[in-house]
Amino acid sequence: MTFVVERDDGWVAVEEMAKYFAPPRRWIEAEREIVRSARGLVLDAGAGVGRVALHLQDRGHDVLAVDTSPGSIDVCRKRGVRRAEVRAVSSGRAADGPFDTFAFFGNNLGLLRDERHGAWLLRRLRAAGTPDARLIGSIRDPYRIDDPDALAYHERNRRRGRMAGQTRFRLRYRSHRSTWFDYCLMSLPELTAIASAGGWRVDHVADDGGPRYGVVLSVAG
Amino acid sequence: MTFVVERDDGWVAVEEMAKYFAPPRRWIEAEREIVRSARGLVLDAGAGVGRVALHLQDRGHDVLAVDTSPGSIDVCRKRGVRRAEVRAVSSGRAADGPFDTFAFFGNNLGLLRDERHGAWLLRRLRAAGTPDARLIGSIRDPYRIDDPDALAYHERNRRRGRMAGQTRFRLRYRSHRSTWFDYCLMSLPELTAIASAGGWRVDHVADDGGPRYGVVLSVAG
Repeated sequence: MTFVVERDDGWVAVEEMAKYFAPPRRWIEAEREIVRSARGLVLDAGAGVGRVALHLQDRGHDVLAVDTSPGSIDVCRKRGVRRAEVRAVSSGRAADGPFDTFAFFGNNLGLLRDERHGAWLLRRLRAAGTPDARLIGSIRDPYRIDDPDALAYHERNRRRGRMAGQTRFRLRYRSHRSTWFDYCLMSLPELTAIASAGGWRVDHVADDGGPRYGVVLSVAG
Repeated sequence: MTFVVERDDGWVAVEEMAKYFAPPRRWIEAEREIVRSARGLVLDAGAGVGRVALHLQDRGHDVLAVDTSPGSIDVCRKRGVRRAEVRAVSSGRAADGPFDTFAFFGNNLGLLRDERHGAWLLRRLRAAGTPDARLIGSIRDPYRIDDPDALAYHERNRRRGRMAGQTRFRLRYRSHRSTWFDYCLMSLPELTAIASAGGWRVDHVADDGGPRYGVVLSVAG
């Protein structure tokens, strides 16, 4: 089964649904490594169909899975995610926390979106977390690519004063269309700067040399 | 490798490129059957990447492959199709013929488009063919489906006074987009009526029970 990713410049790609359901042994090494840094109560941001939430539950964590897609949350519940809610990660309520861990897997660190939004969101998460909260996640480095379509998109972003990796896209499947999403793919230096502006620091990097790398962030001193 | 088919109502599907390159043993049975009815000089309409033209050349036919896509014709030539030209099948020149066989494989009978255009095109082909010319091709029967998205599209067509199977779509791959195409999927009775209006009759039907069936048409009395 496949679906279509459509970028706002008209570029399309076909994605396999299976990877959204993949068990940990099929994850990239960087994700397998950082998931071991989860502690206590976890907020799984952009949980999708529960790939990460189910694994963390299996390992004994309490997990709150959130996603803006009602269809995703419905699938999460059917697959056994015990707490799953339709909402944006930015709309956290104090009553849900405090969280020990925030999880942003599968490019979901891209939800930081840009410097300003990212710093704002990270400050919010810091307030919703324990004093020693951590944030674990993975993201694609947009500079590890020499695809001409991607490079043209980066250049288009730069001309507009945006970060190279800022990406607006939506998902399509048969007659279904998601809303348009704003994501930002970012290099480790870019992520480090946003983390710092939001009150976090990079504690650990898991980088297997593939397009995506993983990080563990902790609350900055 | 895959590409995206986008219909004008926003529905999308993912197609495998491999089937456009498939050798005859991978074709549907109906196509394997009707291709044996080719005789003499063949005009391969909507030749794509030369799937049918190459097979007919191998069997000793002279073939003129035409397609409106310059990229397709380029691939045809690179793969060994000896005569391949960028043009619509409707723009035939007398000097090219007369043709013994017109080939419309892989849903290309859909190029008949609707009753009026279909009858017009078939009359043109008749004029460009020998007195005992034949037309071989395959097409999907739009009524052999219970997919709700397809049925809704049929209903939308009917409300507009169109045949159920009339379909406007384009192909997308990465940053490439084809122009929009008008196709018409049709049942055997619908095809028979258009053939008759254009001066042809259905001589043989190859139907393996799948979504697509094949036909051999000959010039009517």
